[in-house]
Amino acid sequence: MAGTISRRKDQPHIDSGLSARLAIRAGAHRGPTAGLAPGNVQGNLAILPQALAADFLRFCQLNPKPCPLIGTSAPGDPRVPELGEDLDIRTDLPRYRVWKNGELVAEPEDVREFWRDDLVSFVIGCSFSFEEALAIEGIELRHITHGCNVPMYRTSIATQQAGPFRGPMVVSMRPMTPRDAIRAVQITTRFPSVHGAPVHIGKPELIGIADVNKPDYGDAVPVRDDELPVFWACGVTPQSVIATVKPEFCITHYPGSMLVTDRKNTEFAIL
Amino acid sequence: MAGTISRRKDQPHIDSGLSARLAIRAGAHRGPTAGLAPGNVQGNLAILPQALAADFLRFCQLNPKPCPLIGTSAPGDPRVPELGEDLDIRTDLPRYRVWKNGELVAEPEDVREFWRDDLVSFVIGCSFSFEEALAIEGIELRHITHGCNVPMYRTSIATQQAGPFRGPMVVSMRPMTPRDAIRAVQITTRFPSVHGAPVHIGKPELIGIADVNKPDYGDAVPVRDDELPVFWACGVTPQSVIATVKPEFCITHYPGSMLVTDRKNTEFAIL
Repeated sequence: MAGTISRRKDQPHIDSGLSARLAIRAGAHRGPTAGLAPGNVQGNLAILPQALAADFLRFCQLNPKPCPLIGTSAPGDPRVPELGEDLDIRTDLPRYRVWKNGELVAEPEDVREFWRDDLVSFVIGCSFSFEEALAIEGIELRHITHGCNVPMYRTSIATQQAGPFRGPMVVSMRPMTPRDAIRAVQITTRFPSVHGAPVHIGKPELIGIADVNKPDYGDAVPVRDDELPVFWACGVTPQSVIATVKPEFCITHYPGSMLVTDRKNTEFAIL
Repeated sequence: MAGTISRRKDQPHIDSGLSARLAIRAGAHRGPTAGLAPGNVQGNLAILPQALAADFLRFCQLNPKPCPLIGTSAPGDPRVPELGEDLDIRTDLPRYRVWKNGELVAEPEDVREFWRDDLVSFVIGCSFSFEEALAIEGIELRHITHGCNVPMYRTSIATQQAGPFRGPMVVSMRPMTPRDAIRAVQITTRFPSVHGAPVHIGKPELIGIADVNKPDYGDAVPVRDDELPVFWACGVTPQSVIATVKPEFCITHYPGSMLVTDRKNTEFAIL
């Protein structure tokens, strides 16, 4: 009943991945996917022509912390069976971004008209999964407290190159007391396939971040004197890298409009 | 053969806990136990009159991070069967300290002449166990590099009181790069019964340490600009607490002269 009480009256009851995707496909849900199908994994999306797919796949395998691949499609196939029943990658996200030669050309609500037989879909895990586990343990997530996006930064940490795909790792930052930072290392270590343990703690200048108050993406959040900034590899990394490559054609999710899967966050915990 | 080559020529071959204890008992090994029976757990020793034993046992149970109890004896019994075959707690450490009403009265090589029928032995895990695991992973232990004792500090973190036993937690400090600090949290989390994960990272002033270069016990080690000080609960805590209580009678190990057990460090890893 708790779920029923906390649900907004104008919101349909969407408690499974499939019901979320069907509502989105039918136009009954628009806008951000945050809060849909609580406990289910949501994924970042990148769709690339087959000519680039092998290199991008290898890029993800070489850089599993920023690019934790949780699902891929066969060329031209809009399904990703390992992530959900009756899943159509062309219609099941609320909004997309379509890119040609690195230029944003459209932000449609479905991409059927852009579909090609050579397109390969890549679904990459996102920090929502481990944030759920942190919140359950009572660890404050400052950006959620402030109702804003997590701050993200380009770093001096290089990714491993694969074909044309190369560039700096992007990280997200969550300020925590040292005690919570230690607990957060333990908790996120349990989720190696959705970014895993932090990549850095405490000294942003060592990873090329001049000012934590000036993120490159997302919003700044306050870091108190009794806190350390804790940095995780971020799923914005592959998007940033793809933007650099300027592929002739590419589709990504619109920020905040993720793929809601049938997989549970807890399935991704190794312990 | 590596073990044979690295062994000093004048040192007997001591590769098991039992052979270490028998050599010590026979007077064939004197001085620090570091390096004896590599891979075996070494323990801190506290021997108290039965009148204090229940409170001290509860103190250890309330404060498992600084006081990880790995073995106890029956009153008056010099054996601790769970820690070793043919183990005599009165003769099997190279040197002891005997205390009366908080005063150090003797530093003998065995304590048979001091033995009483009401004495209870407590063996407490030590950081040697997790340091072995850190070293295997290639993490530098600065105090070992410098050939000195680990720096230790009294903190503002209070232990949980049990009877007369109360006082500040003592911590040890190892400087590490942020990357190694994260890895060290993961590794030491695997050893909850020998101090476990760090209790603090990065901001010594928050736990009452005014100057990391001025430890209360052990030796100062340099902390580089690209490093964080990482703090673990330390087995000196129970000794410090016992010293405050000034029991009418008490025996502890002489610093560096530990109990070499038959248990393997790896047995204490939970994963």
